[in-house]
Amino acid sequence: MRWNKISDAVIRRLPLYLRVLDELARESDTESISSQELGVKAGVGPALVRKDLAWFGEFGKQGVGYEIGFLRDELRKILNLDSKISVALVGVGSLGVALTRYHLKRYAEDESFNLELIALFDSDPAKIGMTVQGIPVFDLKDVAAQVKEKQLKIVIIAVPASDAQEVANAFIQAGIQGILNFAPIKLQAPDTVHVVAADLSLELQRLAYYIPKYTG
Amino acid sequence: MRWNKISDAVIRRLPLYLRVLDELARESDTESISSQELGVKAGVGPALVRKDLAWFGEFGKQGVGYEIGFLRDELRKILNLDSKISVALVGVGSLGVALTRYHLKRYAEDESFNLELIALFDSDPAKIGMTVQGIPVFDLKDVAAQVKEKQLKIVIIAVPASDAQEVANAFIQAGIQGILNFAPIKLQAPDTVHVVAADLSLELQRLAYYIPKYTG
Repeated sequence: MRWNKISDAVIRRLPLYLRVLDELARESDTESISSQELGVKAGVGPALVRKDLAWFGEFGKQGVGYEIGFLRDELRKILNLDSKISVALVGVGSLGVALTRYHLKRYAEDESFNLELIALFDSDPAKIGMTVQGIPVFDLKDVAAQVKEKQLKIVIIAVPASDAQEVANAFIQAGIQGILNFAPIKLQAPDTVHVVAADLSLELQRLAYYIPKYTG
Repeated sequence: MRWNKISDAVIRRLPLYLRVLDELARESDTESISSQELGVKAGVGPALVRKDLAWFGEFGKQGVGYEIGFLRDELRKILNLDSKISVALVGVGSLGVALTRYHLKRYAEDESFNLELIALFDSDPAKIGMTVQGIPVFDLKDVAAQVKEKQLKIVIIAVPASDAQEVANAFIQAGIQGILNFAPIKLQAPDTVHVVAADLSLELQRLAYYIPKYTG
């Protein structure tokens, strides 16, 4: 792995910077941006912007700032978004279908969102063989073959908590390298597989902390 | 605000600890847990567990660890989850409906998930007046009155990016205190309103970083 000492907190902010640069490239003719302005738009302090980017190279110039097109290309390379990554989703229920639509919309709108959703999986015979928004639903039994054939690198897990670990295991054995997990359990995975928890309930519980208690 | 020097990274882990304690309370008769064991189950190092909890008090005993029932109660108090918090969701599309179902399931299953979803909002006349899973859909025009009447504290935003800021503004003006934002834009909000971004596309872009490049 490249730059393997860099903390996940830094990596977390890179897509935010990339989004700001993409918007600027779309909406204006400006060629450069200061760390101050990039910070404001990304919701990050300017010193932190400079520090984050300095991990990967010298992208800015004193008094000029960052050249937008160049920094964009560099960020895409750093994030592996300069070429397509094939993504799968498992669990074609209400959440899975909503996430599929959301994903396709982002893919169509955002040129730096180079993650292509190309395969869905479910174990329900009524769903296997269907398509959702044009994407085929495969049998969960065929994970190994499909991951290999389609070079799937990332799986989005949208199955109930009780099934999530078993489903994750099947994808891990098949060679998947990243998991975005919407099931409300902590998944066990080897160090070679990166797991991101997208857990609505944890996020809401975290928000609750910030609600002043006696306001009402 | 209480403990206002504590970083969000700490707050982020508290619901994980609470979930582990809830599971233990449900599934076993064990009365105490070591920081080691709590760490393993939550996916956090034991030293960090001790450090996180020490911000809020002396909960552990040397050689015994943490008393499960007590620590659970304390974490619920810290996270404001010892009494109900009323939540709204705006945007009754495919994602909004899926999130509603997901939310209700978590609410039914998890006794520490004390966030009750009681109002949905949309601007589509065809949806206003409907119920989704028993929860009424209100007109977005009535945000101010409903937030006040129902004491809504948190809103989940599931509208398209182009509408998200306007919708957020209406809830902020009405006095909401927390926002969970699923729209892929950075929301502007005053410091008194806490915003958590639940942005699938940013999470996937972050995951892409961890995919080794030439494996295929």
